[in-house]
Amino acid sequence: MNNRLYFEDIEIGATRQIFGRTITETDIVLHAGHSGDFFPHHVDAEFCKTTPFGQRIAHGTMILTIGIGLTAVEINPVAFTYGYDRIRFVKPVFIGDTIHTCVTIARKEPDQKRETFGRVFEACEVINQHDQVVMACEHILLVERSNNKTT
Amino acid sequence: MNNRLYFEDIEIGATRQIFGRTITETDIVLHAGHSGDFFPHHVDAEFCKTTPFGQRIAHGTMILTIGIGLTAVEINPVAFTYGYDRIRFVKPVFIGDTIHTCVTIARKEPDQKRETFGRVFEACEVINQHDQVVMACEHILLVERSNNKTT
Amino acid sequence: MNNRLYFEDIEIGATRQIFGRTITETDIVLHAGHSGDFFPHHVDAEFCKTTPFGQRIAHGTMILTIGIGLTAVEINPVAFTYGYDRIRFVKPVFIGDTIHTCVTIARKEPDQKRETFGRVFEACEVINQHDQVVMACEHILLVERSNNKTT
Amino acid sequence: MNNRLYFEDIEIGATRQIFGRTITETDIVLHAGHSGDFFPHHVDAEFCKTTPFGQRIAHGTMILTIGIGLTAVEINPVAFTYGYDRIRFVKPVFIGDTIHTCVTIARKEPDQKRETFGRVFEACEVINQHDQVVMACEHILLVERSNNKTT
Amino acid sequence: MNNRLYFEDIEIGATRQIFGRTITETDIVLHAGHSGDFFPHHVDAEFCKTTPFGQRIAHGTMILTIGIGLTAVEINPVAFTYGYDRIRFVKPVFIGDTIHTCVTIARKEPDQKRETFGRVFEACEVINQHDQVVMACEHILLVERSNNKTT
Amino acid sequence: MNNRLYFEDIEIGATRQIFGRTITETDIVLHAGHSGDFFPHHVDAEFCKTTPFGQRIAHGTMILTIGIGLTAVEINPVAFTYGYDRIRFVKPVFIGDTIHTCVTIARKEPDQKRETFGRVFEACEVINQHDQVVMACEHILLVERSNNKTT
Repeated sequence: MNNRLYFEDIEIGATRQIFGRTITETDIVLHAGHSGDFFPHHVDAEFCKTTPFGQRIAHGTMILTIGIGLTAVEINPVAFTYGYDRIRFVKPVFIGDTIHTCVTIARKEPDQKRETFGRVFEACEVINQHDQVVMACEHILLVERSNNKTT
Repeated sequence: MNNRLYFEDIEIGATRQIFGRTITETDIVLHAGHSGDFFPHHVDAEFCKTTPFGQRIAHGTMILTIGIGLTAVEINPVAFTYGYDRIRFVKPVFIGDTIHTCVTIARKEPDQKRETFGRVFEACEVINQHDQVVMACEHILLVERSNNKTT
Repeated sequence: MNNRLYFEDIEIGATRQIFGRTITETDIVLHAGHSGDFFPHHVDAEFCKTTPFGQRIAHGTMILTIGIGLTAVEINPVAFTYGYDRIRFVKPVFIGDTIHTCVTIARKEPDQKRETFGRVFEACEVINQHDQVVMACEHILLVERSNNKTT
Repeated sequence: MNNRLYFEDIEIGATRQIFGRTITETDIVLHAGHSGDFFPHHVDAEFCKTTPFGQRIAHGTMILTIGIGLTAVEINPVAFTYGYDRIRFVKPVFIGDTIHTCVTIARKEPDQKRETFGRVFEACEVINQHDQVVMACEHILLVERSNNKTT
Repeated sequence: MNNRLYFEDIEIGATRQIFGRTITETDIVLHAGHSGDFFPHHVDAEFCKTTPFGQRIAHGTMILTIGIGLTAVEINPVAFTYGYDRIRFVKPVFIGDTIHTCVTIARKEPDQKRETFGRVFEACEVINQHDQVVMACEHILLVERSNNKTT
Repeated sequence: MNNRLYFEDIEIGATRQIFGRTITETDIVLHAGHSGDFFPHHVDAEFCKTTPFGQRIAHGTMILTIGIGLTAVEINPVAFTYGYDRIRFVKPVFIGDTIHTCVTIARKEPDQKRETFGRVFEACEVINQHDQVVMACEHILLVERSNNKTT
């Protein structure tokens, strides 16, 4: 669904919460094949029995990919991903865990280099079925300014 | 391949460069399905004709996933991913581009909370076939200290 | 996104139009592997040169799967798929075609067997980049009645 | 295997029964990614615990795709899919269920618009390991007439 | 389709030829992810420009997998794969090539260790669209003896 | 990682052992879709209950693909796969088994047809978590001779 929101329209403190998704063995096998990362922590269940977690854990890049992907249900056509800051993998995600993502508009500021854009910082928390944060990050977006639309 | 390197063994300025991988339409379709992000910038070639790039672009989370995945050829069993800082998508990646990743040990420091570990910061640059950086980030690792091994 | 709409809330003639998706060679290869249907019309480009279309065509079940999938962006938690009627593959879909789906509420009626539900009939048209209908069908939904919520 | 059967050769009442296939969590994850339909009924095991079924259910479009795909073992080069009628999802399919498809030639008739073709209606039933019909539909085929071959 | 053929029923010199399949970029990307083999000959188009072939080539294990898979249309329930001999990759397979497989019963012999079985040797040739053999191998099957059925 | 080893550099008896990988239901479903081999021994859990193994077994071509793929961590840019001999599937591989591959340089010999190359024969054993060999084969490589490099 399309939802055009200019820089000025975005309210600090606004939150979105999205439906969850269960992380499956399939997701881990697919992510290993997609990334080429077949480290034994992700794909060797026998090795994992010798680790503190005792089982396979999800790739960090997969938790980011699915955690952010879960928020991609509403398109703001005047917003673009600029980058991510402070990605932290706080707890491991295991096969069978169900995660959802909570997004809060943390702050916004003018963009120094681009007059017609502002930067919006979304605080993202990926949360498991025990209400534990498993990953946190700041998603930085470039968003068009509304005065821009009349130019 | 296993390559055990303790915190003290890791030299600042050391670099690794890894074989490349061509980003295909397949990768984008798989990443859309893996992440659930079917934004038209990634999967609608007709829409993309109306954008400045004129064509589909790779998901940011995919460039991170594959860019970091390309470095996952040598396992250091005493190192763990702690997080990522300052991920920036500098240029778009198009279907048919070939990327490789250049990793440089940028700096290291003791870990405040964990006596037996240090933090190592790898500067990662994902580079396309025109020698342009398309993504940059800092990969933060927790690495065991060597004095730890005799404890 | 969640959007609770009871049987009484649904207006005949209401339409939804959704962002498009380009049908790729990848989709056809994946659908062959998912369905187990490797008929040469879908996977043998040399054979297809001898057919009237001259090229590989998408599986009918894939056009239904993706065409309906494109509409799965907004969840109505009180609606359930009951079935499909009159699915017709009007024109072939080729690799590189971009399709979108247009959904119109065609009619609705009480459900004979289930007092607390009504049936809603959505007319779905899957349309290519030349504005040609490639598939049409009627999607039948069971939707809770609003008087049900106060019971 | 190729098996050329003209309209006149097809006998009403003839049945085919095909080997089965177990529906796995993998199939559901792949179908979500293929269709873009990540509704929580299919991918969120925690949410599903709160539903009457208590667990994830397969997408309707997947049961059609795999159910019909199971019949795609013998190619009749003079037959083409025209469409499907009366697709009904009679019972849910859960992870671990094994389905097979039973096809019966229900009826046939001349095609009004195309002299050299007739229409054949296959009654398809997708059946689970408890001998319960989980999906039923009518598969409509256009089949060349045999007098056509001498023209 | 089921086709029960006992050791005695299998005729030397009998051949089967099967519909073809076009090898796509998708197949190579999927096989890299499935096998974990991301060697640049398969996934780095820029590197491949510097090789004699000038382009990416299919993995040998994929040509075996798909070449043999193409023959898996008819099930002989009393035959089992014992192994393969003399697999040779005679020519490279490129993206866009279409392969089919020609199977000939080469010879058969009693099984020394298993009285109730015989060994059947199928000569398999995987052939491209230019009628060139790209892979050859001998597929060894254990097949039940028919006198076994009355025991 | 790149590791250039000429024919003369390769020592008979040298062994490599590689990290393991757990064979998942996902791998079997993906291999069925990749190969087109949906034989009930691999995809029909109900049928498999009636067989001696009582459960689904991995495709032989998949054990070769993953078993050899596990060895693809170090690239010798002057070596090329020539073929495989004596592939034998000694024991079945079940869902949940973890395999690793042990490679030993068995022997080497000049190549009769190509002066600048020699043949190296690697004995490969794919081994499960019970230390049982499940597959054995000989991997034949063409390796450049070192005197070749000065020509």
